[in-house]
Amino acid sequence: MKVTFQIENAGPVIIDANPGDNLLELARRANVAIDAPCSGNGSCGKCRVKLLEGQLDTIPSRHISDEEFSEGWRLSCNCKVVGDVTVLVPDIASAYQSRMKTADLSSPQEVAIFTACQDSLKEAGIAFTNSCRAVTVTVAEPTLDDTMPDNERLTWALQEALGVDKVRIPYTVMTRLASTLRENGFTVCVKGMVEDDIFTCMDICAPDDRKIVGCAIDIGTTTVTMVLCDLETGELLAKGSSGNGQIRYGADVINRIIESSRTGGRKKLQDAIVKETLTPIIANLCKTAGISARSILRLCIGANTTMNHLLLGVDADPVRMEPYIPSFFSWEGLTAQDLKLPANPLAPILIAPNIGSYVGGDITAGTLAAGLWNCDEMRLFIDLGTNGELVFGNRDFLMSCACSAGPAFEGGDISCGMRATDGAIEAATIDADTMEPSFTVIGEPGQKVVGICGSGIIDIISELFRTGIINARGLFAREGSRVKRDQHGMGRYVLAAPEESETGREVAINEVDIDNFIRAKGAIFSAIETLLNSVDMTVDMIDTVYVAGGIGSGINMKNAVNIGMFPDVELEKFQYIGNSSLTGAYAMTVSDQAAAKCTEVAANMTYLELSTYPGYMDSFVAACFLPHTNAGLFPNCNRF
Amino acid sequence: MKVTFQIENAGPVIIDANPGDNLLELARRANVAIDAPCSGNGSCGKCRVKLLEGQLDTIPSRHISDEEFSEGWRLSCNCKVVGDVTVLVPDIASAYQSRMKTADLSSPQEVAIFTACQDSLKEAGIAFTNSCRAVTVTVAEPTLDDTMPDNERLTWALQEALGVDKVRIPYTVMTRLASTLRENGFTVCVKGMVEDDIFTCMDICAPDDRKIVGCAIDIGTTTVTMVLCDLETGELLAKGSSGNGQIRYGADVINRIIESSRTGGRKKLQDAIVKETLTPIIANLCKTAGISARSILRLCIGANTTMNHLLLGVDADPVRMEPYIPSFFSWEGLTAQDLKLPANPLAPILIAPNIGSYVGGDITAGTLAAGLWNCDEMRLFIDLGTNGELVFGNRDFLMSCACSAGPAFEGGDISCGMRATDGAIEAATIDADTMEPSFTVIGEPGQKVVGICGSGIIDIISELFRTGIINARGLFAREGSRVKRDQHGMGRYVLAAPEESETGREVAINEVDIDNFIRAKGAIFSAIETLLNSVDMTVDMIDTVYVAGGIGSGINMKNAVNIGMFPDVELEKFQYIGNSSLTGAYAMTVSDQAAAKCTEVAANMTYLELSTYPGYMDSFVAACFLPHTNAGLFPNCNRF
Repeated sequence: MKVTFQIENAGPVIIDANPGDNLLELARRANVAIDAPCSGNGSCGKCRVKLLEGQLDTIPSRHISDEEFSEGWRLSCNCKVVGDVTVLVPDIASAYQSRMKTADLSSPQEVAIFTACQDSLKEAGIAFTNSCRAVTVTVAEPTLDDTMPDNERLTWALQEALGVDKVRIPYTVMTRLASTLRENGFTVCVKGMVEDDIFTCMDICAPDDRKIVGCAIDIGTTTVTMVLCDLETGELLAKGSSGNGQIRYGADVINRIIESSRTGGRKKLQDAIVKETLTPIIANLCKTAGISARSILRLCIGANTTMNHLLLGVDADPVRMEPYIPSFFSWEGLTAQDLKLPANPLAPILIAPNIGSYVGGDITAGTLAAGLWNCDEMRLFIDLGTNGELVFGNRDFLMSCACSAGPAFEGGDISCGMRATDGAIEAATIDADTMEPSFTVIGEPGQKVVGICGSGIIDIISELFRTGIINARGLFAREGSRVKRDQHGMGRYVLAAPEESETGREVAINEVDIDNFIRAKGAIFSAIETLLNSVDMTVDMIDTVYVAGGIGSGINMKNAVNIGMFPDVELEKFQYIGNSSLTGAYAMTVSDQAAAKCTEVAANMTYLELSTYPGYMDSFVAACFLPHTNAGLFPNCNRF
Repeated sequence: MKVTFQIENAGPVIIDANPGDNLLELARRANVAIDAPCSGNGSCGKCRVKLLEGQLDTIPSRHISDEEFSEGWRLSCNCKVVGDVTVLVPDIASAYQSRMKTADLSSPQEVAIFTACQDSLKEAGIAFTNSCRAVTVTVAEPTLDDTMPDNERLTWALQEALGVDKVRIPYTVMTRLASTLRENGFTVCVKGMVEDDIFTCMDICAPDDRKIVGCAIDIGTTTVTMVLCDLETGELLAKGSSGNGQIRYGADVINRIIESSRTGGRKKLQDAIVKETLTPIIANLCKTAGISARSILRLCIGANTTMNHLLLGVDADPVRMEPYIPSFFSWEGLTAQDLKLPANPLAPILIAPNIGSYVGGDITAGTLAAGLWNCDEMRLFIDLGTNGELVFGNRDFLMSCACSAGPAFEGGDISCGMRATDGAIEAATIDADTMEPSFTVIGEPGQKVVGICGSGIIDIISELFRTGIINARGLFAREGSRVKRDQHGMGRYVLAAPEESETGREVAINEVDIDNFIRAKGAIFSAIETLLNSVDMTVDMIDTVYVAGGIGSGINMKNAVNIGMFPDVELEKFQYIGNSSLTGAYAMTVSDQAAAKCTEVAANMTYLELSTYPGYMDSFVAACFLPHTNAGLFPNCNRF
């Protein structure tokens, strides 16, 4: 029998199937992209397809309403094939594309964070210089009396201009040498890098094409963010982000590793990040910045250990299996041509070093940016990505750990969750009496609601709890026009009716969402508690809490404390520092010394494995309440 | 209108054409391979196609007999399109394939030449060792208490095994690291090279896969020859050769450069050598030697300056145009992955250095092999390729020059010419009375004649001249059953009638062939004369003459002197040293010191530009007789 995937905005893909085949599995076999963050266990509700012709044997799902079911909507992971069938697949590629943003640079806060990081690193004695160079040289024009070949001619000119001992001209430059020299009257701009008194030519251009560019990339499990910067001045040239294309192979690192271990999986996962995600963003940013991809002479990646392995197409299975051995923590030697990224083929790709299977380069780069390695005070650094990672310490010691908080902070695992982009509720309050919400939506004035991002969820849950609408277990305790229940009695709080939303679908938060979020925040809190405990310290010894990650700058620290996510310390101690992985990667891109410092920081960081640490599970269970089973830990908590 | 090229042993290729379009040009535009050594000027007669349907506007050619014309044979370069037409194109790819030989290693002479070269280099103090290594290491198996990542684990093991300071693990090895370690129980063979106390891993294999292989390649304008050798022992593993696939773009370097300068030409010429020629030979030799291409860790190319440029896809036009500036003489930095050759992607490709636009790496490698740089006696080194190149000198000085002898010595420019492989007449005598020939044919006993190779042509011309059948101008002076004339009166000497030959076509040598050959030998002789003259020396001061090149080991030195090709010195002074470019490239492949020595030899070699040297043209004209206009130069010449 035949299954036809009718892909939105594209043609049909037809695959042979046997009765009983799972529809999501078939889609993967046919290389049809279906968003499936939970990797097909029915929990996330994202792998929707619409039945157009034929029948499917379907397990009912709470994610599909009766009305939607009658319209043909199904979760592909819940469907078995029984005969010829045609389904419509929403176009996730174009969804990624439309979600890609390249105009974020205008945000003064973003720029301020970059500037602050740069300033604090400079204060710490880190020079913002690197080994890349653009140099314009005039080469002696050959005559019948001076028949030296082109490469020697260029070598002499570069030795003189740069004062270097040796010049290397790689193949990619050699093939363009003769014509570029002659097209430009023997005056050319040569781009390259100096190392150990050797200049390696990376590009040969017209004399006015002088820009040399760096590319800093944060590869999150859920979101990828990138900046292009001028390698001479450090100036930001363009910024963009998009969802990580691997998300259709699972929302978390474990599911992705499992997918990558299947036949052809490493290539698929690598293609999803390299070809489908990084390549279009880089191309887009080059266009925005008005530069050619060949001008990108250096890249730096801040990513967790698994993302780094999947990016390189390296076997990640040993990371997941006892004794949890990655192929590498730190590794030098990657170039853009290895991954076929649109950049100068010889451009080195620096990888911020990992320090454990679950504390990766995003955290070491973030620690670099957060300056823990250079402060006297005790600083707690919290990165809220798809996992939560923590680093605690100062210039004398650095302790780190990871907890599987899941993707809730980035809007994952939440029925109406989304990332902090246009249409997301990023902040909210609820009137205790009327139970009516007021909220802020990201975007232009008049932007209608699409969903709720991490900071919005914190606010809503905090407010629902403060106003007594939900209890300490996250179950609805008050009734009202905003509180609805489905046929199974599951409560939800409606923020926008279908007619008020951008998509025509209701935007609400339900008890399952709240439960997911309570487990996520409980993981974070218990990790903080355990990490401090491991060094015999308590929350009152923390001088500063740096919060980073995709949760967004809208995070209300008071509410985060209120729900027991962060420890109950003075609010002035909290500081949101944005995407610190990207900030660190940016510093490493522009500064050789910052890159070296990151390696040093990684070498000095101790990793605490929480899953085997005594007491962690008890601490986690105790934290899965609002704000905590031991309310005495949260004396300042606002509640009904 | 449509032109259909019906390719033998393959399908049709159809291209749109306009009236008056040249058929050979159309074939090139359609990427249909037609052998055209003269690049389409009608002189070589090789671009034959057979008219199957329709008509062609054809200029008559001496290369097509009336009978052949009536059968439909045409020279494609002489045809213009007048309407829809279908022609049969002989399959030159399969012709190359069938001409490829991989069993030459059995020749004791070849092995003796290699051994002699190796011995003389060793005597000169050159160590036959190189930086490549295969090392079997057992890596400590990871446990929960020892969670060091794989790359650090391997690095430690290699540092201990090799005593090196640093270990580099490039991307191609990193992607196979985890799985290869685990598939082999953490005992693996690592192949790579040591430089400056750094070991670069190039491959990671099962512990029993220990062979590391070098590949030495002579890229001649007409013929490509290659050996695989064991990098640890120097042992020859396989040898093969084939025609240079670029030949359809012209027989000589000038025509090839012109073709390469057309749109897309650099890529076409590069593909012809890399994809069509080198790739199948290497694949074939790997099969013969029973090794994987990844085991090839080092390659060395001996080739002339133009071949080197076309191989790399580098703009060669400046080599041809005043002031004749190549992109490079010597150049380091090429790897197998740059050319996508079937070898370890990281394998360096050493290029024997060029010293001028027309004295290339084949000559510097040959000079290395011929030992001129290390002898006290005066040695003349003659390489008879498509061009003739000479080096004269000893350990104190080295003078070199090139002359455009054309491809006659390799059987080119000769109607029944062929390379020295199966079916070639390699030696001949002619009875002065009966005018009947007796000859030796290369191949198994009973091998029928296909054509005549360079050494055969020398013998035949010498014998025709000795027996008075031709005069000093190369014109037929006696009549007989073996001497035939065509309708224009052009004489030819028939060696095999159609029914006696392998191909069913007559094998003969005609006055045009003889004229071509006389000009070729005249170029060589006058070059020798001029080179000696430039250093105020005469032929009697030569102690040894080393003759190298594709002319074949069958060369009869007495006959070569007899026709005035070589100076009339004692026959004992002549020595045939085979393909010295290949021998030199072999030494450079196996020995780092030989490679360094070749660079030193190149730096010490002086280049004499003949075309502008006073007296050269006069000397050439005087040499275009049998044996010479000044017969006194050849006191020992045998003649009628």
